[in-house]
Amino acid sequence: MAIGPLDLELGGRLDEVTVAYQTWGELNEAGDNAAIVLHALTGDSQAGGDGGWWEPMIGPGRPLDTDRLFVICANILGGCQGTTGPASLDPLTGRPYGMRFPLITIGDIVAAQRALVERLGVTRLIAIGGSIGGFQALEWATRHPDLVGAVVPVAATGALDPQGIAMNEIGRRAIMADPNWRGGEYLSEGVFPADGLAIARMVGMVTYHSKESMELRFGRNPAVRPSLYPSFGATFDVEGYLHYHGAGLVRRFDANSYLYLTRAMDQYDVARDGGEAYWLGQIAAPVLLVGIRSDWLFPPDAIQRLHRRLQALGKGATYVEIDSPHGHDAFLKEWGQLATLLTPFLRDQTGARA
Amino acid sequence: MAIGPLDLELGGRLDEVTVAYQTWGELNEAGDNAAIVLHALTGDSQAGGDGGWWEPMIGPGRPLDTDRLFVICANILGGCQGTTGPASLDPLTGRPYGMRFPLITIGDIVAAQRALVERLGVTRLIAIGGSIGGFQALEWATRHPDLVGAVVPVAATGALDPQGIAMNEIGRRAIMADPNWRGGEYLSEGVFPADGLAIARMVGMVTYHSKESMELRFGRNPAVRPSLYPSFGATFDVEGYLHYHGAGLVRRFDANSYLYLTRAMDQYDVARDGGEAYWLGQIAAPVLLVGIRSDWLFPPDAIQRLHRRLQALGKGATYVEIDSPHGHDAFLKEWGQLATLLTPFLRDQTGARA
Repeated sequence: MAIGPLDLELGGRLDEVTVAYQTWGELNEAGDNAAIVLHALTGDSQAGGDGGWWEPMIGPGRPLDTDRLFVICANILGGCQGTTGPASLDPLTGRPYGMRFPLITIGDIVAAQRALVERLGVTRLIAIGGSIGGFQALEWATRHPDLVGAVVPVAATGALDPQGIAMNEIGRRAIMADPNWRGGEYLSEGVFPADGLAIARMVGMVTYHSKESMELRFGRNPAVRPSLYPSFGATFDVEGYLHYHGAGLVRRFDANSYLYLTRAMDQYDVARDGGEAYWLGQIAAPVLLVGIRSDWLFPPDAIQRLHRRLQALGKGATYVEIDSPHGHDAFLKEWGQLATLLTPFLRDQTGARA
Repeated sequence: MAIGPLDLELGGRLDEVTVAYQTWGELNEAGDNAAIVLHALTGDSQAGGDGGWWEPMIGPGRPLDTDRLFVICANILGGCQGTTGPASLDPLTGRPYGMRFPLITIGDIVAAQRALVERLGVTRLIAIGGSIGGFQALEWATRHPDLVGAVVPVAATGALDPQGIAMNEIGRRAIMADPNWRGGEYLSEGVFPADGLAIARMVGMVTYHSKESMELRFGRNPAVRPSLYPSFGATFDVEGYLHYHGAGLVRRFDANSYLYLTRAMDQYDVARDGGEAYWLGQIAAPVLLVGIRSDWLFPPDAIQRLHRRLQALGKGATYVEIDSPHGHDAFLKEWGQLATLLTPFLRDQTGARA
């Protein structure tokens, strides 16, 4: 959907913004039975349905119950799965934006989502998502409390810590050091920084797993598939896994999107421009914070600190934890626990309007 | 010192091996008052003396007391600070080995050290080192028990876990994806894979720090120096720190050495060729295992497991822990705690021969 121009948080403006989205279920007359599912760094709008990345969470009788809810998922601004991003054609030049794309923020991503849902007739929504989807959920709750009926940030705090920023910067360096990046002009020049983006993805995969999950899944087992890249000596299963996921992202994701979205991830701070107490104080909706025992990108203790600050401000906030060895990515794996933890909260928030 | 040819653990042979080393203190008549300090991945033989990387640990009255001990530190095989490695000239071709350098192991590194210390007249030594220096210490204790009087592996277990292997592989990929790597022939071709090695170093630095130390030191503070690399948007202090350390390693380290030594690190397994119980059973010396509270490369619980296995085998093993937020690198920073923890053990092992 074309949502028109968008003025950006850090200055600059996009004159024509398109948002790719999908929906499941029906919006009611009042427009107040909506839920927006907020995707993570390399996700897309296909949250539900066959092959959807959150398919077990969305559908009739599922936690996001489409018998009662109108569920929306939109590819985020700056992404590359249908929504305007660095790989889109700049209307001024007719060529992909590349690095002429303006700096965007999580605030801008959510502003584009707001423009979308208003055009769809939504008057109230549940905001739910993991990782930078959790950032978006917090952004919805603090900057758009008029529309938010309930908020569920999963595996996220109010800002990325320096270790997370470091990992993102390593990925960016790998992309920008790739000679095929060409200052971001690779699409116009018919090449692609595949090596760089694959390395960035490998860094990401390490942060999405945990030490425990890697030990359980790979241990020190030898590689079971031939190396996709130059290698030497005996190689390990975990290396083949990283190579496979690196190559997989190259097939489906734009390298400049990776740069812009990781930078937006780094920059996000729920406390910006006013302080944490002020912004958390704006939240009008009940909050369900979900941590993951083995997550080292957004560890449980950091999410628990956010929970205590919300409680100290008198907010209705609950903390629950997924007991999983799978690290950050457990919110894309632990369907049973997610259903158990999310269903009562989501039912409470939607029951009156079902 | 030229130590002659070396037959290698994985096959192959180096016909002419040179080992660069430094010593502090005097070897006694019996040759039994030696200590060998075993350096980590990118270290060198300058452990003691002005600017030495373990200078506060080595000297008169210090934990490695040169009034009583003859302290040796040798650049490791495969390194690039004077000992034979991939940047050395291959006597067959007169050009740097590059990737024609044979695969080496921690076992080979220690075999070269043994050849060195035997030529120096050492009959008994304390083996002490951190990180892959700790691997070397374990290798000394299990494969050369006839020479080892005491062993102190610091911040090390008997093998790297898959998360550690993953981080090493990301660094190797970055080096090998650099177009200036040229299949390892960069020295012959007058170029250097600076971008790739810098990225590998950045990955390493994240593993040497802890989440806690990065939070304490950098938080989300803005960058205080201009970015060394292409960047965009506001950057953070932690990014500048990584860039600085990336560039720093490029000035002093060979990229192929980084490949070979990280591969040797991955491959190390104290249990190889016979099993853990057999090899730990070979240890004849008292063992002091040193963990670091905030180390996530070799976490305390993994070192404690090694400690329990040694105890179950009836070995004289003690576990102590450095209480530090600084992560893996605390063994290069926490001088006061190191002195307190190491001094009694080292004095006990050397007192009779002082």
